[in-house]
Amino acid sequence: MQGSNRRRLSYGPLTEYVGYALRRAQMATVADFVAALKELELRPTQFAVLTVIKENPGVRQSEVCEALGIQKANFVPLLNELQRRGFAVRRTAVADRRSSALHLTSQGEAILGRARGLHSTYEARLAARLGTRGRTQLLTLLKRLMQR
Amino acid sequence: MQGSNRRRLSYGPLTEYVGYALRRAQMATVADFVAALKELELRPTQFAVLTVIKENPGVRQSEVCEALGIQKANFVPLLNELQRRGFAVRRTAVADRRSSALHLTSQGEAILGRARGLHSTYEARLAARLGTRGRTQLLTLLKRLMQR
Repeated sequence: MQGSNRRRLSYGPLTEYVGYALRRAQMATVADFVAALKELELRPTQFAVLTVIKENPGVRQSEVCEALGIQKANFVPLLNELQRRGFAVRRTAVADRRSSALHLTSQGEAILGRARGLHSTYEARLAARLGTRGRTQLLTLLKRLMQR
Repeated sequence: MQGSNRRRLSYGPLTEYVGYALRRAQMATVADFVAALKELELRPTQFAVLTVIKENPGVRQSEVCEALGIQKANFVPLLNELQRRGFAVRRTAVADRRSSALHLTSQGEAILGRARGLHSTYEARLAARLGTRGRTQLLTLLKRLMQR
């Protein structure tokens, strides 16, 4: 709030653009996600990476990047941090010594378990805003946009 | 594609999370946006900023940042680039000499006009994937997520 001379801006056609609405909704939900998982200091991408490693033990870095649409330049520091915090380890794969296989540590399993609990509460809040039917509709519509 | 030994990863619960679906849909549509406006070399945020300046001549930088949810540190280089390319200008406001007022140049008006044309084609492609009713539903549901 910047005082009484603050004026309401016009957004023009932006408010009717699907692309713009997606960006704003994503920004709002990311902020809520970060707040919900604040006590664990896990960001959405870290949460997604831990989930994919848990679901696919021994997965390669390049596979995680491709699966989640993460640029390699962004993935390296992210993975370094997960290692530094003791949540994930790289082991040299026997079959292909050039690439390393990723695994969760027991600490990583534990943090992901706690994160899922907090995340459920966050998803329930989103669902409350959307309604049960609205939530299902939204997932269906978003999946149509993902398939290119 | 990484050859025949590429395996299909499991996403676990990620595919049923609204937050994750929003992120992936947004990533997919941003890529489409960038491709659609490639000949103008305008990114989504630049397009949104030009639109807000056009709709609100004389708007302040801080107002644009707040309206679009842009961090000031990201806005400064973005605006510098729009100025360098001759699309927008800063003029010192008479009422408050500490802040400058933003305006589009005639070149800025022209590029935004062309951008809107290309953007309409892009939005029509999104609408084709969603269906007319689906598009309206999606906008309604996304707006529920934006209101916090």
